[in-house]
Amino acid sequence: MEEQSTLQTQINTLGPCKLESTLPYRTWEDDKTIQVMVDEDLTEEATEPFSLALEAAGPRKKLYFDPSRAKCAIVTCGGLCPGLNDVIRAIVMEAYHAYHVPSVLGIPYGLEGFIPKYGHRPYELTPALVADIHRFGGTMLGSSRGPQAPEEIVDTLERSNVNALFIIGGDGTMKAARAIHAEVRTRNLKIAVIGIPKTIDNDINFIPQSFGFETAVFKATEAIECAHTEACGTPNGIGLVKLMGRESGFIAARATLALKDVNFVLIPEAAFTLEGEGGLLPALEDRLRTRGHAVIVAAEGAGQHLMQRNAGEDASGNPVLGDVSDLLRKAIADYLKKRGMAYSLKYIDPSYIIRSIPASANDKVYCGFLGQYAVHAAMAGRTDMVVAKIQDRYVHLPLELVTRRRRRLNIYSDLWRAVLESTGQGMLKGMLPPEQA
Amino acid sequence: MEEQSTLQTQINTLGPCKLESTLPYRTWEDDKTIQVMVDEDLTEEATEPFSLALEAAGPRKKLYFDPSRAKCAIVTCGGLCPGLNDVIRAIVMEAYHAYHVPSVLGIPYGLEGFIPKYGHRPYELTPALVADIHRFGGTMLGSSRGPQAPEEIVDTLERSNVNALFIIGGDGTMKAARAIHAEVRTRNLKIAVIGIPKTIDNDINFIPQSFGFETAVFKATEAIECAHTEACGTPNGIGLVKLMGRESGFIAARATLALKDVNFVLIPEAAFTLEGEGGLLPALEDRLRTRGHAVIVAAEGAGQHLMQRNAGEDASGNPVLGDVSDLLRKAIADYLKKRGMAYSLKYIDPSYIIRSIPASANDKVYCGFLGQYAVHAAMAGRTDMVVAKIQDRYVHLPLELVTRRRRRLNIYSDLWRAVLESTGQGMLKGMLPPEQA
Amino acid sequence: MEEQSTLQTQINTLGPCKLESTLPYRTWEDDKTIQVMVDEDLTEEATEPFSLALEAAGPRKKLYFDPSRAKCAIVTCGGLCPGLNDVIRAIVMEAYHAYHVPSVLGIPYGLEGFIPKYGHRPYELTPALVADIHRFGGTMLGSSRGPQAPEEIVDTLERSNVNALFIIGGDGTMKAARAIHAEVRTRNLKIAVIGIPKTIDNDINFIPQSFGFETAVFKATEAIECAHTEACGTPNGIGLVKLMGRESGFIAARATLALKDVNFVLIPEAAFTLEGEGGLLPALEDRLRTRGHAVIVAAEGAGQHLMQRNAGEDASGNPVLGDVSDLLRKAIADYLKKRGMAYSLKYIDPSYIIRSIPASANDKVYCGFLGQYAVHAAMAGRTDMVVAKIQDRYVHLPLELVTRRRRRLNIYSDLWRAVLESTGQGMLKGMLPPEQA
Amino acid sequence: MEEQSTLQTQINTLGPCKLESTLPYRTWEDDKTIQVMVDEDLTEEATEPFSLALEAAGPRKKLYFDPSRAKCAIVTCGGLCPGLNDVIRAIVMEAYHAYHVPSVLGIPYGLEGFIPKYGHRPYELTPALVADIHRFGGTMLGSSRGPQAPEEIVDTLERSNVNALFIIGGDGTMKAARAIHAEVRTRNLKIAVIGIPKTIDNDINFIPQSFGFETAVFKATEAIECAHTEACGTPNGIGLVKLMGRESGFIAARATLALKDVNFVLIPEAAFTLEGEGGLLPALEDRLRTRGHAVIVAAEGAGQHLMQRNAGEDASGNPVLGDVSDLLRKAIADYLKKRGMAYSLKYIDPSYIIRSIPASANDKVYCGFLGQYAVHAAMAGRTDMVVAKIQDRYVHLPLELVTRRRRRLNIYSDLWRAVLESTGQGMLKGMLPPEQA
Repeated sequence: MEEQSTLQTQINTLGPCKLESTLPYRTWEDDKTIQVMVDEDLTEEATEPFSLALEAAGPRKKLYFDPSRAKCAIVTCGGLCPGLNDVIRAIVMEAYHAYHVPSVLGIPYGLEGFIPKYGHRPYELTPALVADIHRFGGTMLGSSRGPQAPEEIVDTLERSNVNALFIIGGDGTMKAARAIHAEVRTRNLKIAVIGIPKTIDNDINFIPQSFGFETAVFKATEAIECAHTEACGTPNGIGLVKLMGRESGFIAARATLALKDVNFVLIPEAAFTLEGEGGLLPALEDRLRTRGHAVIVAAEGAGQHLMQRNAGEDASGNPVLGDVSDLLRKAIADYLKKRGMAYSLKYIDPSYIIRSIPASANDKVYCGFLGQYAVHAAMAGRTDMVVAKIQDRYVHLPLELVTRRRRRLNIYSDLWRAVLESTGQGMLKGMLPPEQA
Repeated sequence: MEEQSTLQTQINTLGPCKLESTLPYRTWEDDKTIQVMVDEDLTEEATEPFSLALEAAGPRKKLYFDPSRAKCAIVTCGGLCPGLNDVIRAIVMEAYHAYHVPSVLGIPYGLEGFIPKYGHRPYELTPALVADIHRFGGTMLGSSRGPQAPEEIVDTLERSNVNALFIIGGDGTMKAARAIHAEVRTRNLKIAVIGIPKTIDNDINFIPQSFGFETAVFKATEAIECAHTEACGTPNGIGLVKLMGRESGFIAARATLALKDVNFVLIPEAAFTLEGEGGLLPALEDRLRTRGHAVIVAAEGAGQHLMQRNAGEDASGNPVLGDVSDLLRKAIADYLKKRGMAYSLKYIDPSYIIRSIPASANDKVYCGFLGQYAVHAAMAGRTDMVVAKIQDRYVHLPLELVTRRRRRLNIYSDLWRAVLESTGQGMLKGMLPPEQA
Repeated sequence: MEEQSTLQTQINTLGPCKLESTLPYRTWEDDKTIQVMVDEDLTEEATEPFSLALEAAGPRKKLYFDPSRAKCAIVTCGGLCPGLNDVIRAIVMEAYHAYHVPSVLGIPYGLEGFIPKYGHRPYELTPALVADIHRFGGTMLGSSRGPQAPEEIVDTLERSNVNALFIIGGDGTMKAARAIHAEVRTRNLKIAVIGIPKTIDNDINFIPQSFGFETAVFKATEAIECAHTEACGTPNGIGLVKLMGRESGFIAARATLALKDVNFVLIPEAAFTLEGEGGLLPALEDRLRTRGHAVIVAAEGAGQHLMQRNAGEDASGNPVLGDVSDLLRKAIADYLKKRGMAYSLKYIDPSYIIRSIPASANDKVYCGFLGQYAVHAAMAGRTDMVVAKIQDRYVHLPLELVTRRRRRLNIYSDLWRAVLESTGQGMLKGMLPPEQA
Repeated sequence: MEEQSTLQTQINTLGPCKLESTLPYRTWEDDKTIQVMVDEDLTEEATEPFSLALEAAGPRKKLYFDPSRAKCAIVTCGGLCPGLNDVIRAIVMEAYHAYHVPSVLGIPYGLEGFIPKYGHRPYELTPALVADIHRFGGTMLGSSRGPQAPEEIVDTLERSNVNALFIIGGDGTMKAARAIHAEVRTRNLKIAVIGIPKTIDNDINFIPQSFGFETAVFKATEAIECAHTEACGTPNGIGLVKLMGRESGFIAARATLALKDVNFVLIPEAAFTLEGEGGLLPALEDRLRTRGHAVIVAAEGAGQHLMQRNAGEDASGNPVLGDVSDLLRKAIADYLKKRGMAYSLKYIDPSYIIRSIPASANDKVYCGFLGQYAVHAAMAGRTDMVVAKIQDRYVHLPLELVTRRRRRLNIYSDLWRAVLESTGQGMLKGMLPPEQA
């Protein structure tokens, strides 16, 4: 139960409140909290469910900034994800229309946009400019990968008189946000740093479903359906789809449940073997001999334990992964040729098609709330935190908490059990937790 | 805190457990519960949030029925809703593949299917028969409206040796399920009655989002977008869209948030006025004069306070509503003609187009879990209950609880606040709670 | 064979050509023609196919206007149709980028936009302004119905120094274009009047498929699919869909062929009867008794021979039609009640949802060509004509020809034969030509 | 004009007609022809347009086979293409319902299905079996690549008493059909061989638009839109999309016109250069420097002149192409790195996602007619021919004609001119015909 107070008080604020909110709607006292039960679906390590009190997101009675003089800035970082424009739009609209903030800066091309040497120019985001952007995928601001010096970023924030920075990005970006906040604090500046976590892999710690994930699952099912059609269309047809998921197989698992056409789902969390009893290849051979076709879905991070990994890091600081589709295509070719089986494999990599589409209606609503709550939090002087939806309620979470580790699919969970039932791959090695296997 | 034990123990069971589950996955003890915080988003009446312990849905260690001899039956009742086929499919697949149940009966055309005089014939549902139904909207079983005598229904169940009845339908159907359970208990039969609540209006008590709702919202946004295009395409163009929502405006509210093109949302929970200060018509006139077009979305149950209501009941026992689109079209015609304003109103009623489409990917996953959990509950001997998702977790809820009243949109909620911000209709009378107005 | 020269020379030009084209592409001599075989699919009256020589659309070696000083104007009239924005965009882009025309005026809200008393203001259309409009349905210019005085329209054209008017609209609008041209000629002005025929009903004389028609058919199939799902979902379910088609049943016929779920298609060209042998109602009853459900698609102009018609004219000068859906719903209710058959009818009117969506990829390409060819024609001094696609080639057609009468579905055609085969409704009275019945 | 009689009389028939048609619709005399004007859009070689008389497709007064005793067979060959299932369905439905043919065999997995050693079993196709297949992509029969011995194929046809073979496939398959026909004639058998040309590349000689092409273009635009979004989302972003088109760039060209977001379209018919004046790479660099992003669409057969080609042939007998995406990615990397430009290239290959989707509404109608006309032709004793749509009319074409060469995009055409205008790539070398460059 200590846990509760710990988490709750971790939300940093810029200082004592300054003025009363003039919002025409019900506003909340500072101590408004939401009780959340954390069980094994939230944290893999936890052996016992425990209860947390998290600060409720929402409009506050007391504001820290005088909105009529405040200046906001928005930046989007890392890879594309459905809903980025919706979040940008919501922040601008809430800042202008609910708080009458006079200026919202758009930082172009991610953290690069703060650094003068790149030559990108921040520009004013007005309601007119963002009014229709939610109809399009991508981010109107552009994005870039990789870190930039927090000192230079804060230089730019200071020079531009920004009071609230809204920073939308993944795990690496949230770590950058912490560094920015640290630099802000060192300089004793009054700049709120509010993160809106973005991850198409759905792997942000503590957040059951990140924005854009639902849209991604929907679009992934289209690719799987095509793989199924291709597989059925030829003797011993194999459809292979690689989906996003560097360290967690959420998209692969959910899309499989939505479509039911998948025979093998490979995710980073379940260490499969290729040959021998319980191996993927004999099971694939068996499937082809009995049914004539097969569909395999692989998260991009699956099968890393079967490949050499010393390929360094990418621009975002993530380790470069071995290509699971190469691994599988070669292994399948070797194995089936040895057995004299002709086959036809069609490989689909829909990643860029998935991440660049506009958000679904549901994700649009979700992104709208995230943007609004981010503005509420900033105006009330919150900082070093993210807005998130947990168990159907919107809350504030300390940046420290969401960056502590990545969320992974729990192979004890009902989600994974349903995947095993849907695919029938329970006989593969590594699919069940050790004590159930 | 009494509340907890009360709710938890309300789940009726058919009797002491009989045999061990042979499921290859982790199964749960009978006392597995989930803690839920109920705040004002769940129950309008509650003044203070309170904590509930609900029985967790999921596979149980001890089963009541011997699945290898069990017989199931499925019936779908009331109007169409995206996902019905997904739920049917999931029940059949789980019963056959996970529990090896030898027989699942499909009851055709709703409760009529139980009554011999209608001449519908129940038939066997096999995995092969349901394998592809999730690709289509509607219900493969057919449906019908209105009650049938519980005695006759139980006669048929008894005659067919059914052990578990899965009954999918709305508020009225859940009441019918209670009556069926009561009759079962009176006859001292061993038949589990498991409800899966279906409501495209999203108005089932205690259940934040019912299956198919998300799909409905997505499709509703298409109609609204067309209304917006039509409104913009002509001088003083008015687009009017009537959406489902007899007693609650959830679809109207959510679709509005997703699309941002709506100027006025009318829902049953917010009693608007037509003329005078804060009236809809002067606000509409103002909008036309300043912007040249307007989009109005009305839930079908909106504006009933402005119409005479003594039109009796429909086949499902719901009061026949006055037609809000008639009301608005006449009122707008009278009002604008008096003011000499030419205008062009395009009216769209997309109800049948919304409710008959296949479920979205997300709803498919949801329906799959509902079906699986319903089978788990039945095999473990639970009865007189529904499966539901609350705060991201699946639970058992007593039928008594979900039928106690209908869920309505809380006009104190952030959802409604966001609607007011998006539409700018906060100046209309009846939109804000009295103390905030 | 006289026919050839007649049609070819009917294309009016403003006068002898003035300057050489500087287009970087191959341009055509003035006498470039295309041979077209007109058989019964083009003109119902023709008893023998005959050959026509039509002027080919395309860039001309000699221009009439000096594009660097020319001024264009665009107006869209009548109801919405997918592709309007694509045509507008193409005209603007071609005028600016290929001909370097310095000014293109957008006339707001149809012919009203020419008339000062309405207070609409024409405005400059630039490439930047129209760059993204093809992503949206409707018309960015707005539209209106009904005629305006040609004298006032030409006053405005003259006052604005317009050299080329592009007028996009239906049958009535093309007649207005003729009147405008006549007034232009009377005043001896140098203004080219180029029509781009728009008709979602596909009923423009001589034009096999108008822009937007394909998009409309696609969207109509969605509504029919929903009607089918609804019909199957209830005992004796009837799905009734009313589609566009005042005088011709093309959308109804084509959508039926695309979907195969329709049992009865009613179009204005085939005069069905309700009762008695070969009547719709006994056939419907039979279908319900044997199959349990039925889908009816009715073009809005179907069944007018069964209704009293003296309801005057609408704003566009078209006779107000009786409502075929009212007729059918009442007739079905009377007939089936008399026979003691319970049934459930779901009525869908998707008109506004169909006509306001963005154009399909294919229609976008089509609209792009229409816009480009319209500019080519105008710059070369053509007038009193429309651009059209006939037998896969783009041509110029005299306005006189396209307004002579409306195109109707030929019930001798393979199209209608395929519809009868798909629906199985060949036994209904009025479906076959007299000599085949 | 000789041309006319030549082409017309080339349609082989099995012999003198045997019996009168009993079709309830108007049927045609044997000499029903359609006049077609062939200009440069149809055949690249032709310097002057010429007129052809082609045999009209349609039901004939006189039949060769007695349908009540006839046996049909259907086979689908080569890669997937939207609409295959629609054609299969239409043949089965027309054979059963219009001609009352008692048996239609489905040959599984392409030509392999005729050869006993592969072990595939032909099976009966009934109306019930094919009723819903048009809702799905792919081919319910399966397919395979590559030739099989005509003798063995005809052995199987003879053994199975097949009277009419419907063979759906591409260029290689149509050549196989000719060989089968030759073997049939050698043996003096009475088996009609009717081709339905399938090519997602749209490269069948004489056929302006093959079935599935429109659907493919629509789906291709989705991928291009994603590439555009990705390109805009990062500094110096390049979106590269590879589309189908081994020898002709029709999909690339049409999708470009539909979407307008493409800056460079590379097709096999226009030999671009990489470096130097008018080269792709300097133009790309220029585009990035001025606009910050670029979208490139490459048909898979583009740029072969820049690669070594001696990679042998694939299973279908087509030369293995060099990978234009590899070529471009390496060339771009080398070129931009030399110039010190950081950039980000996102490569999308949507081929399998495009070819495996269900047909669009328009393509469904088209496929329906192709299937019906194929049955009409076979029953009337036509053989060694294909059914095709030319200039909006359905005709019979000799197999010899369609296999003579592949259709290619005419770079003199308006289609290509429009592409150059849309992309602005007219300054690249090789884009314009020599005399216009």
